[in-house]
Amino acid sequence: MSHDLESLKHQAALQAVALIQSGMHVGLGTGSTAKYAIDELGRKVAAGELTRITCVATSEVSHAQALALGLNVGPLTTQPFDIAIDGADEIDPQLDLIKGLGGALVREKLVEVQAKRLVIIADYSKQVSQLGEKAPLPVEVLRFGAHSTVKRLEDMGAKGQLRRSGDELYVTDNGNYIYDAHFAADLSSLERQLKGMLGVVETGLFLQMADIAFVAAPEGVRELHR
Amino acid sequence: MSHDLESLKHQAALQAVALIQSGMHVGLGTGSTAKYAIDELGRKVAAGELTRITCVATSEVSHAQALALGLNVGPLTTQPFDIAIDGADEIDPQLDLIKGLGGALVREKLVEVQAKRLVIIADYSKQVSQLGEKAPLPVEVLRFGAHSTVKRLEDMGAKGQLRRSGDELYVTDNGNYIYDAHFAADLSSLERQLKGMLGVVETGLFLQMADIAFVAAPEGVRELHR
Repeated sequence: MSHDLESLKHQAALQAVALIQSGMHVGLGTGSTAKYAIDELGRKVAAGELTRITCVATSEVSHAQALALGLNVGPLTTQPFDIAIDGADEIDPQLDLIKGLGGALVREKLVEVQAKRLVIIADYSKQVSQLGEKAPLPVEVLRFGAHSTVKRLEDMGAKGQLRRSGDELYVTDNGNYIYDAHFAADLSSLERQLKGMLGVVETGLFLQMADIAFVAAPEGVRELHR
Repeated sequence: MSHDLESLKHQAALQAVALIQSGMHVGLGTGSTAKYAIDELGRKVAAGELTRITCVATSEVSHAQALALGLNVGPLTTQPFDIAIDGADEIDPQLDLIKGLGGALVREKLVEVQAKRLVIIADYSKQVSQLGEKAPLPVEVLRFGAHSTVKRLEDMGAKGQLRRSGDELYVTDNGNYIYDAHFAADLSSLERQLKGMLGVVETGLFLQMADIAFVAAPEGVRELHR
């Protein structure tokens, strides 16, 4: 088995897509690992291995990828998902997650909260003993008054910066900014305070949402359950 | 004194603008009553009665109005406002407010939270003994997944609808929708739960923010303090 990260991500994606059955309503994630899952789902549908699959994507990029593969992708409705498959930036032992380095945290959360099973795919570099160990916590904030919202975040202990894309501030699919935050405190205890803050749209904390994680390591893919 | 509502709103606006002094940084509200205040501020600056006034507007409409009057209007920074003047849809005896029927609730809240003094101007029809008595509570929600967010709001007891503008759903300056909600429960107790909800950007509840209200009634303008 190859030890290179891309190959590991691909293997995790294949195992997640193996859970999809014909007739399922599927939430499609965003990012470099989710991309492999969408490719594999597209391949299976094109090959006739799966039929009557409907999908909703968590970003405009994934939506375009799925459309190009001939998948049936629609808007988010109140219909629950049988399964949603997505990557993560950090996974702790309880399968709590940090997501959003790819910029799609809000749409991912809106889709994945409706999933009967949220399946996370990642390489082993994403496993941490505590959230925030390596990754910043992405916090989506309104553009209007963003500097005031950042000041409020910093007043509660955050250190970080508004995400940039080249010379410009990065703008999400929802038209907002992202503040990449580091906190000394335990992140899970901050979720309500952060989401309750004026100017904050959502955070990249996904607590008690993931059901299964396929974590690809050099010795093979580990399947973890919450 | 005229009893007609427009004249009453105008009188309240004049009293609020009388509190502005030269050199102040001023937050400009949005809506039919705030419009009178912006007009009066523009008149005073043009006449030289006030100098070195800087402003930030809470909507693109008010921004354009202020610019057209020659006011010095800039973007929202972290600089506190000496005063902010705005209307309200409901005012209770503690000067807690419902705002947002004009659609600018989020920008209003972002500006007015930074004001040393928030001055509310209204006609007497806006006074209520309990918030929600007459007006719906506007809740700004993300467009993506709006129907799922509405379902979550309704699951917690809301009755209401997404605001329309002609045949289309109304879109705020931030690119979001507004759900106009009625609740049987005491609104102030719901604020944290609503703001904490996935898909909700902000609510039109302005609790413990207003310092002064000028309420114009047929017998004269009443000045109320929190």
